[in-house]
Amino acid sequence: MNAEIISVGTEILLGQILNTNTKLLSERLAGLGIDVYYHTTVGDNMKRLQEAFKLASARSDFVITTGGLGPTGDDLTKEALAEFLRLPLEISDDEVARIKQFFTGRGLEWVESNTKQAAFLPASRILANAIGTAPGMAYKHADCAYIVLPGPPREMQVMFDNHAIPWIKENVIEPGTVPLFSHVLKFIGISESKLEHTLKDLFETQTTPTLALLAGKGEIHLRLTARAKDEGSFRTLIKPVLAEIKSRTGDFIFAEGPKTLTETIAEALLQNNMTLSTAESCTGGMLSASLTSIPGSSAYYLGSVIAYSNEIKTNLLGVPSGLIQAHGAVSEEVASSMARGVRILTGSTIGIGITGIAGPGGGDPEKPVGLVYIAIDSGEGTTTISHNFRGNRENIRERSVKAAQHLLERYLREPR
Amino acid sequence: MNAEIISVGTEILLGQILNTNTKLLSERLAGLGIDVYYHTTVGDNMKRLQEAFKLASARSDFVITTGGLGPTGDDLTKEALAEFLRLPLEISDDEVARIKQFFTGRGLEWVESNTKQAAFLPASRILANAIGTAPGMAYKHADCAYIVLPGPPREMQVMFDNHAIPWIKENVIEPGTVPLFSHVLKFIGISESKLEHTLKDLFETQTTPTLALLAGKGEIHLRLTARAKDEGSFRTLIKPVLAEIKSRTGDFIFAEGPKTLTETIAEALLQNNMTLSTAESCTGGMLSASLTSIPGSSAYYLGSVIAYSNEIKTNLLGVPSGLIQAHGAVSEEVASSMARGVRILTGSTIGIGITGIAGPGGGDPEKPVGLVYIAIDSGEGTTTISHNFRGNRENIRERSVKAAQHLLERYLREPR
Repeated sequence: MNAEIISVGTEILLGQILNTNTKLLSERLAGLGIDVYYHTTVGDNMKRLQEAFKLASARSDFVITTGGLGPTGDDLTKEALAEFLRLPLEISDDEVARIKQFFTGRGLEWVESNTKQAAFLPASRILANAIGTAPGMAYKHADCAYIVLPGPPREMQVMFDNHAIPWIKENVIEPGTVPLFSHVLKFIGISESKLEHTLKDLFETQTTPTLALLAGKGEIHLRLTARAKDEGSFRTLIKPVLAEIKSRTGDFIFAEGPKTLTETIAEALLQNNMTLSTAESCTGGMLSASLTSIPGSSAYYLGSVIAYSNEIKTNLLGVPSGLIQAHGAVSEEVASSMARGVRILTGSTIGIGITGIAGPGGGDPEKPVGLVYIAIDSGEGTTTISHNFRGNRENIRERSVKAAQHLLERYLREPR
Repeated sequence: MNAEIISVGTEILLGQILNTNTKLLSERLAGLGIDVYYHTTVGDNMKRLQEAFKLASARSDFVITTGGLGPTGDDLTKEALAEFLRLPLEISDDEVARIKQFFTGRGLEWVESNTKQAAFLPASRILANAIGTAPGMAYKHADCAYIVLPGPPREMQVMFDNHAIPWIKENVIEPGTVPLFSHVLKFIGISESKLEHTLKDLFETQTTPTLALLAGKGEIHLRLTARAKDEGSFRTLIKPVLAEIKSRTGDFIFAEGPKTLTETIAEALLQNNMTLSTAESCTGGMLSASLTSIPGSSAYYLGSVIAYSNEIKTNLLGVPSGLIQAHGAVSEEVASSMARGVRILTGSTIGIGITGIAGPGGGDPEKPVGLVYIAIDSGEGTTTISHNFRGNRENIRERSVKAAQHLLERYLREPR
């Protein structure tokens, strides 16, 4: 069983939009134990679309398309598939009625060209679109199965999860297929090469489960993957190697599974009944924005002061102006004072202070661009770390946020 | 002249990483006047890689690959191309020396397998990698030209811009090819359908330049595209239709060209010699983070108070607790009071206040999830707007930031 994903749209070939649909579908198919061998993107062109269907049908057992289901003359996906299969498209009156309702329900004018969206191959399964106009379609033909999905990512995802997956389980996945399971360990505070070196022998010998490292945005994910008859058997299968990995690198693991670093922190704050506030300079509110991205964050997050100017550092956070003069606004002393100041100002259990030089200007040989100080203050003491980040302004700010979250996560594991 | 982009990597087929390289390359090629007809992704598999080269060479004049240039046994792009072309790969001693230097310069251990990265087709052009180890390669063979680039996006981009583009101009673009130019108008505060309706006749009749709408993240971009012998001729060509578009929709245009909304705001603040501070509740620092994403923002941005709890709204921003009791924390009155409070607290020219319900919890029939109030205060008056956004927490927060930037941009055009 191998699958191919065809993305349809000239705007993708022109680089006008980023194709995120293919990543999501690939992830879902991997989870269903279906191997994806090819991704193809083709424009809104009848001849090339038909050729793409011909090629995919020859080399793949299962073809999923996204895009080209709209009402305009450029939307050709179903038409090209029908032409290629030498089958007609038939209008579904029920679907015409549903799409009409969608229009009237939103006070939009019905245009006859929309009828086209309600045309399907005979004996195909119509996949309902819960949030947009164009329905999808699933069709099984001789040796190849087809699923046709809309292009807008939200519509595509909801339709795939709710309607395509059940159809795939019934019609595509061969009976007896052993599904693929995976388990992810998330690391922070260790480099990719160091982690690889620490687990070198496992990477070289381990086959069931297989191990794969994925680095990005200051974190490293280690994925254990294996086929197993069910979740329980998979857990049993990975147990020994999981224990071995944890015994060597456990200190750097902040989460298992889908939980993010921000969610890990949120849980720990709630469990410890602690509240948090932040005082940010170079990160300009990014730490605060990430902490409040979680629903219910008002239970542990009180607020922040973004102190870009020295006056605000002094007047609001109570950082002594003499301290700024003596050590500079970017210094360990000022980071500590900011953390303490915001904790006292907001009455939170913990305060975090960040000050640094995000660049591109403002650096000098003694304090270069990328120098960042982060402090955490709990009333019983202050911990400060410094980093020399490389990269552009955006990278330095993102890494500073990640480093602050890392410091906080460590603190919450072992408060002092 | 038509091109194809092949992305190489099993991790892309597994949905583990998002393929951003193809979008960037497609944009660049469109800018060079080269049509892209296909994107293909194929895994780290010798047989399928060779087949991908075979197919692409048959249907395209120009093939660009990304990925598969590393030192491991899984990195097969150059090997597959050489096999397909029945040519050898030859080691470049100069490149071996450069890669060795890269390793020693970073205190990394040299491993012999890295030599593989310095192997190239005979008579190919080596494309230097300024920031990583794997060099790229450009090669012209009979009717098809090939460019082989590394997978990491930064390395790929720097190599493409600095080394591949000059080679393409010399070796791929046919003499006499008329390049493609485009001009972008950026709109805010008007819906896509309204804009389309306003310009309907132009969309239907306009061919040189062509018009294309692109909506996303609260903005709409209108792209005018045409072939012309140079930038000047293009400007002359688009002048009449550009004037017509502006006469109908000028009020909603915030920028022309690559300038972002945040950059437009930054410029206007600097020009007007104004300073800014923000008081954010539901956006939790996102507005502040976006305003400080611009280098040199300390010239106009002073700071913010992220006021999640009512105590902080009252104690720091001076929002009367009676006002919160009377109207609720999410109200026009509290947004205004926050804007005024942060302006006075920081001494800025303008203060912005945001309060709303980002959800998923916290809504009720009277004040549902998605209700957001935004105020701008200049000391001479306060303007408040309210929105009822749909979507999830992330959408509502992003739209609130965009709406606040929109309000600010309008204010800066016509301060009152």
